[in-house]
Amino acid sequence: MVNQVQRVDGNWQSGKSDSSGASNSGGESSKESSRCSTPVLDADRSDRLRDKMLRRMESGDRWFSLEFFPPRTASGAVNLISRFDRMGSGGPLFIDITWHPAGDPGSDKETSSMMIASTAVNYCGLETILHLTCCNQTKEKITGYLAKAKHLGLKNIMALRGDPVGADWEEEEGGFNYATDLVKHIRSEFDDYFDICVAGYPTGHPEAESYEEDLRHLKEKVDAGADFIITQLFFRAETFLKFVRDCRKIGIMCPILPGIFPIQGYQSLRQLVKLSKLEVPEEITRVIEPIKDNDAAIRNYGIEQAVEMCRLLLESGEVPGLHFYTLNREVATIEVLRQLGMWIEDPRRPLPWAMSAHPKRKVEDVRPIFWASRPKSYIYRTQDWDDFPNGRWGNSSSPAFGELNDYYLFYLKSKSSKDALLKMWGEELTSEDSVFEVFTCYITAQPNHSGHKVMCLPWNDEPLAPETNLLKDELEKVNRRGVLTINSQPNINGKPSSDPLVGWGPAGGYVFQKAYLEFFTSSENVNALLKVLKKYEPRVNYHIVNVQGHNLTNAPEMQPNAVTWGIFPGREIVQPTVVDPVSFMYWKDEAFALWIEQWAKLYEDESPSRMIIKYIHDNYFLVNLVDNDFPLENCLWQVIDDMFELLDMPPELVTDGAVSE
Amino acid sequence: MVNQVQRVDGNWQSGKSDSSGASNSGGESSKESSRCSTPVLDADRSDRLRDKMLRRMESGDRWFSLEFFPPRTASGAVNLISRFDRMGSGGPLFIDITWHPAGDPGSDKETSSMMIASTAVNYCGLETILHLTCCNQTKEKITGYLAKAKHLGLKNIMALRGDPVGADWEEEEGGFNYATDLVKHIRSEFDDYFDICVAGYPTGHPEAESYEEDLRHLKEKVDAGADFIITQLFFRAETFLKFVRDCRKIGIMCPILPGIFPIQGYQSLRQLVKLSKLEVPEEITRVIEPIKDNDAAIRNYGIEQAVEMCRLLLESGEVPGLHFYTLNREVATIEVLRQLGMWIEDPRRPLPWAMSAHPKRKVEDVRPIFWASRPKSYIYRTQDWDDFPNGRWGNSSSPAFGELNDYYLFYLKSKSSKDALLKMWGEELTSEDSVFEVFTCYITAQPNHSGHKVMCLPWNDEPLAPETNLLKDELEKVNRRGVLTINSQPNINGKPSSDPLVGWGPAGGYVFQKAYLEFFTSSENVNALLKVLKKYEPRVNYHIVNVQGHNLTNAPEMQPNAVTWGIFPGREIVQPTVVDPVSFMYWKDEAFALWIEQWAKLYEDESPSRMIIKYIHDNYFLVNLVDNDFPLENCLWQVIDDMFELLDMPPELVTDGAVSE
Repeated sequence: MVNQVQRVDGNWQSGKSDSSGASNSGGESSKESSRCSTPVLDADRSDRLRDKMLRRMESGDRWFSLEFFPPRTASGAVNLISRFDRMGSGGPLFIDITWHPAGDPGSDKETSSMMIASTAVNYCGLETILHLTCCNQTKEKITGYLAKAKHLGLKNIMALRGDPVGADWEEEEGGFNYATDLVKHIRSEFDDYFDICVAGYPTGHPEAESYEEDLRHLKEKVDAGADFIITQLFFRAETFLKFVRDCRKIGIMCPILPGIFPIQGYQSLRQLVKLSKLEVPEEITRVIEPIKDNDAAIRNYGIEQAVEMCRLLLESGEVPGLHFYTLNREVATIEVLRQLGMWIEDPRRPLPWAMSAHPKRKVEDVRPIFWASRPKSYIYRTQDWDDFPNGRWGNSSSPAFGELNDYYLFYLKSKSSKDALLKMWGEELTSEDSVFEVFTCYITAQPNHSGHKVMCLPWNDEPLAPETNLLKDELEKVNRRGVLTINSQPNINGKPSSDPLVGWGPAGGYVFQKAYLEFFTSSENVNALLKVLKKYEPRVNYHIVNVQGHNLTNAPEMQPNAVTWGIFPGREIVQPTVVDPVSFMYWKDEAFALWIEQWAKLYEDESPSRMIIKYIHDNYFLVNLVDNDFPLENCLWQVIDDMFELLDMPPELVTDGAVSE
Repeated sequence: MVNQVQRVDGNWQSGKSDSSGASNSGGESSKESSRCSTPVLDADRSDRLRDKMLRRMESGDRWFSLEFFPPRTASGAVNLISRFDRMGSGGPLFIDITWHPAGDPGSDKETSSMMIASTAVNYCGLETILHLTCCNQTKEKITGYLAKAKHLGLKNIMALRGDPVGADWEEEEGGFNYATDLVKHIRSEFDDYFDICVAGYPTGHPEAESYEEDLRHLKEKVDAGADFIITQLFFRAETFLKFVRDCRKIGIMCPILPGIFPIQGYQSLRQLVKLSKLEVPEEITRVIEPIKDNDAAIRNYGIEQAVEMCRLLLESGEVPGLHFYTLNREVATIEVLRQLGMWIEDPRRPLPWAMSAHPKRKVEDVRPIFWASRPKSYIYRTQDWDDFPNGRWGNSSSPAFGELNDYYLFYLKSKSSKDALLKMWGEELTSEDSVFEVFTCYITAQPNHSGHKVMCLPWNDEPLAPETNLLKDELEKVNRRGVLTINSQPNINGKPSSDPLVGWGPAGGYVFQKAYLEFFTSSENVNALLKVLKKYEPRVNYHIVNVQGHNLTNAPEMQPNAVTWGIFPGREIVQPTVVDPVSFMYWKDEAFALWIEQWAKLYEDESPSRMIIKYIHDNYFLVNLVDNDFPLENCLWQVIDDMFELLDMPPELVTDGAVSE
């Protein structure tokens, strides 16, 4: 029976070629699929990098990739990771992180090559190659680095020799003398686990005896087990194309990716040329020497020159993808890619939240909604899980969340300085109303009374999401009165999955949401709210909890409630976000702690400002509400209105059990 | 952390009492939940019988249960099982099957008590109690029966002594002399696995020394581990109520269910009274003696008398549920329950398909759509699975299906005789058109050319489902032209879960469907269809297979496609039916085999009629189509129309690749 099914599958494969329309997956044309950086639920998500490349090459979809180096400072790391998020949205097939032997590259330091690459994979969801140099290293040390990389979820290594330290370097018997040795070592110690990339030199390695000798070395690296080649930078398309022809001639058949270096400044060019012992062609020096003091002009020329060269490369048909040396900058690379039409302006989201690229998490497709604005914190707190929920959250899929004591990890830190935060959130708070104002200004994007825009809150590191903007007016109104919202989504009754604001997932689908609202509010408000909520049974589900964990809910049997789901051609239902009663208890610890850790601690001990935040932390409740009737108009605003109405009523009109009509 | 969540749960429990509206599950009022025989996804599904009783008693929802005896003949078994399906739809909390020592009750015979009870649990999805008598049995024999019952998914035993065989019966040292011995034995050998019921005698057991002596015996049975009591029949409410009072006085605190016997005929009453050594009260004999030859009058009186007595019982507040001795008949019991308002006229379906009550299957909530009309066959062919899909079908949830060689198992047999089938499906077929006519008549419910209504087809043992009736006109049209439909569903874009035609699941939800159509058709039609389907990419997914397993599909990566799903308050998404490419291969074996086994074999070997069916079996394709665009009008009829249009076109207008426009 199983054989028959296999055979059937084979038939289907052969059927593909005579019916082009029938062969694509998820109803995406092959053109479209190339524009989706991480197509959800498709083979792409679980494939290894070399297979992704193969699939792209078969379909003729060109890709790009981005190289970064590790930052020197912790704040540099925070900024680089934001850059990963921004540049990741343009749809690179992968990024790579260089190995800085001088920067303790394999350590746990937040600036190490290892940690930056790990963050890119785990927290930014980017397919990532970690560079590794072997020169002057023991096998044990290298094996240790590789084991650590594997443990962190890294699956790709760029195997390099690296520069010998000191002038007295000599080949070692049985040591790592060439990148080939490293490739062999990886394959012998880790079998086929890693995809391995090696460097190619279109004009020959500066230390090689000859161009031909260098090509033979490259062939050795590939024969030793490398999967693909990224080249050193070059300045003429023909340099690369000749190199590819020469490689093919001697039997190097793997993908060869051209390293593109958009000239971004006179000094950086000179420095790079010196390091890499390259010659800048006369047609380039002739242009830039006269404008060497005009940074903008050089940058523009660099973009123009890179675009032109890339066009030639792509037109040759020999180039499956372009690799960019970004120098950790955004503008030039993005501009080149834009001009080439390869930058995804409006990326289709595979899921409503950013997926992690850790192999352990490849099946993960359900998360609690609570961490919607803090996905990195969610990934961090669940990093030790062995299984990730897939298809359904379930009652049992809630193993312990990580402790909070590490939540101030560098990549969860606010990007703003203490000074900037004080300007946004108030140098001095005088009452709870001052806090209400901060929330209201964040929602409205209006300056606060001292003239500063509130760009973030402890629970939201970014300005309001476009989707949340749909609810802006209502949010403003309730925040003004002390319903301090930290998370919300509108209801959606079947919008196309391609909707620019709320769409996600493969083409041809429909997405749905139940309206959700989460806020802090006073116990007085909660008392009124509970009375009001009786009128909304069973339409509205609620969870109401204070910092001590006193919890009120009407969730049936503590089951999760799916609040975002999508229906797609030829697939099972996807329900990426749930309101889960159990994990809400873990989230509330984090949500309450942020008052103290991120806000109260800005002020002096015992200062009135600090006491106000502390009072809110100790006395307010965290509330979440779900309107289950997603096809109808969202009733949650009416719930809050009813609560205010009840609060505004003279006490003699309020009975204990319910509102008198 | 976990402790905190537990504590929270405790708080929630305590919070329930002061907010009645907040305590119900799934948004059903407690009144409603009592009317849902097997509320989907609720504790009810996994609870054991005694816990279901407890929950009903707490909520004040009264239940009923039904007693049947095993049939004597195989065709009697087929009829009884149909009766289970019909009476099961009225919402009994459980049924029970008596133990007939003379009928080889523990055997695998289709008429045995064991197999009938197993069928009720596994195939009809009914909570079932198997009676077991111990008199004259060895412990090994009894343990064997219990182990077999457990293996078959039975969870409840009615422990009885049974009638001694022969006059020379004597108490055995260490043997089974009383039901108490059996209760003790069950508890000692199977711990708490079974729920145990014992019999109570409101007027005392006929062999007991006294009423009081008999009560003491009953107390012993309960003390030995019985969970509840069902009483012998009685004729006056007060008889039962006094019995309950007397039980409570001596400390029998478990549920006591009155055995209700609606008098259905003069002879059956006399016989029963003789067997049970009961006295019929004078007020009853006075009424029925004069009408003893008028069956209808006696039946009507029996209903009236039972209703009156049940009312008194229910009003007493001492009766949590009513147990009916049905004598394997439907009318009287249903009528009594209807008059009491306890029969569910329009049962809410927990899922679109009938669930099995086998404990192994309690989490099962996804099935392939193919067996929609043959759920018992699906259950049979998957009975050896260790896990059942829950939440998502997945690619890996398709272990081997059972072989087909047993599919003629008695409960899968047609209820119609060979003669009746020949009348419906044609004494003599003259061409494929004769077959088209049979299908068309089945759809239209019109008589065939020899004047017989076609009430079933090999793939559909019942007349067209009400839901399918929605598609009747279109179905008729296509069947006439040789698109021989065997399964279909309309698209549904969010109808309330309470919809009488297509609703299922808990209250307050919305149900959805993608349009589905499955049919046999000729290879000529399939060729045209494949051309047409290119126009419907990616909207329509298809699987097309012939008996040899040659398969054509555009399913992305052979993934399942969810075609029925529901969204409910406070829950994750439920997606009970999928079109799964892998199990379709198993279904096609069954679907093709039915041509031969159920139809061709009606005719003589080598007869033209048989050859026609054989030709279809050998040459037709089985096709299924899904319209993924569920919010739009179903396009599948247009697909078929386009296919006919293409077939009707003069050949010179048809290009090979596509239809010329």
